Amino acid sequence: MTMATSGEVKIIGLWASSYCVRIEVALKLKGISYEYIDEDLSNKSPLLLQLNPIHKKVPVLLHNGKTIAESLIILEYIDETWPDLPALLPKDPYERALLRFWANFFDSKLSGSGRTIFITEGEEQEKEVAVLKENLNVLENGLKKDFGDKKSFCNGETPGYLEVVMGPSFFWLKILEDVSRAKLIDHKNTPFLFSWLTEFCEFGVAKDALPDQAKLVAFAKKRREMLMESSKHQ
Amino acid sequence: MTMATSGEVKIIGLWASSYCVRIEVALKLKGISYEYIDEDLSNKSPLLLQLNPIHKKVPVLLHNGKTIAESLIILEYIDETWPDLPALLPKDPYERALLRFWANFFDSKLSGSGRTIFITEGEEQEKEVAVLKENLNVLENGLKKDFGDKKSFCNGETPGYLEVVMGPSFFWLKILEDVSRAKLIDHKNTPFLFSWLTEFCEFGVAKDALPDQAKLVAFAKKRREMLMESSKHQ
Repeated sequence: MTMATSGEVKIIGLWASSYCVRIEVALKLKGISYEYIDEDLSNKSPLLLQLNPIHKKVPVLLHNGKTIAESLIILEYIDETWPDLPALLPKDPYERALLRFWANFFDSKLSGSGRTIFITEGEEQEKEVAVLKENLNVLENGLKKDFGDKKSFCNGETPGYLEVVMGPSFFWLKILEDVSRAKLIDHKNTPFLFSWLTEFCEFGVAKDALPDQAKLVAFAKKRREMLMESSKHQ
Repeated sequence: MTMATSGEVKIIGLWASSYCVRIEVALKLKGISYEYIDEDLSNKSPLLLQLNPIHKKVPVLLHNGKTIAESLIILEYIDETWPDLPALLPKDPYERALLRFWANFFDSKLSGSGRTIFITEGEEQEKEVAVLKENLNVLENGLKKDFGDKKSFCNGETPGYLEVVMGPSFFWLKILEDVSRAKLIDHKNTPFLFSWLTEFCEFGVAKDALPDQAKLVAFAKKRREMLMESSKHQ
């Protein structure tokens, strides 16, 4: 696919954000060239505030001057705008509904826990780790039930919507383990999730889009200190 | 459309829930016959717990034995399964993204405020009313910017996705005003929202699906008392 057919595509993002990596992996899977504009979240750019005045969050996709916000909505936009293979979502409405259900479950139940674990310690952190683990078990059993007979990925041989949503956060969970010293996800408790998302992280374009692990750990440690320090002064 | 083409369609719902009315209006717009199974939320049925073990919430759509949960996901399923006119979502990916953006904003920012206002009073309620009004203003300005030149509805002459999402809750907001005695939405502060959603509530199939106002007020008063009483004992 050439630039002529895909038009001007820009991501306003943050290299360390798993939500932004979702968009990068999706575009790479489709073979769409894009320009990446990296934000400094401690000093949000006038461009970001102008493009996403409602949520003031990354990622934002700019396509031929049109602005699309919210990562799950951007993924649907990408799939509908470039419907050529590989499709992120399958054609069958019921399969699409299942994938969207688990993506929403993931974003509504697990992301918040991850953030809390990131900026807490001791008892408060342990409590949230227990919540996260319970939800990981729900995911493990639910996904095994709905996609237990999948090939490598839910859509077949290539990662699709649900891997693009969950894979980058799985990578982040492993960083979070390192930074918070809490054991969160492993092949014993959630073997299905673990092997499925490990395979995603090893997949060509996903590996290309995921941040460098050492760089991300250093970033996470610094950001954690900063957030914990500022929460003390609130 | 006959039963032969649409198959067996059931809604597990609650007549008073705006989330369930969404599904009824969508099916009525498409001309799909359905059976309605009314839940008692203070005593959830084994059927509901079996069909939606993750969230244990209505609405659930049953279509030829397949289970779909979460109202926004059900609406997408309905539109994809019966793509004949009237379409809930337009074909253009950017318009779809805008409609999804505002539906998500509505569900994530306004539903929680509505619930809080419903079960609080005095200062606590006033604080949440201020939050709700601020978000209604964001909606008013955002929708006017994105859909200011729409005909009756975003898709044209017939209600579509965004009206189906927001219209039933707008009806509920008016009940909430009655029950909580807080002024929430009117034609002076949010004229665009007010006239647009009033038109929805007057539209044939929407009017058919919306609960009887007096019956809903009585239900809401009783439920409010019960929830406020039980929150005192927590």
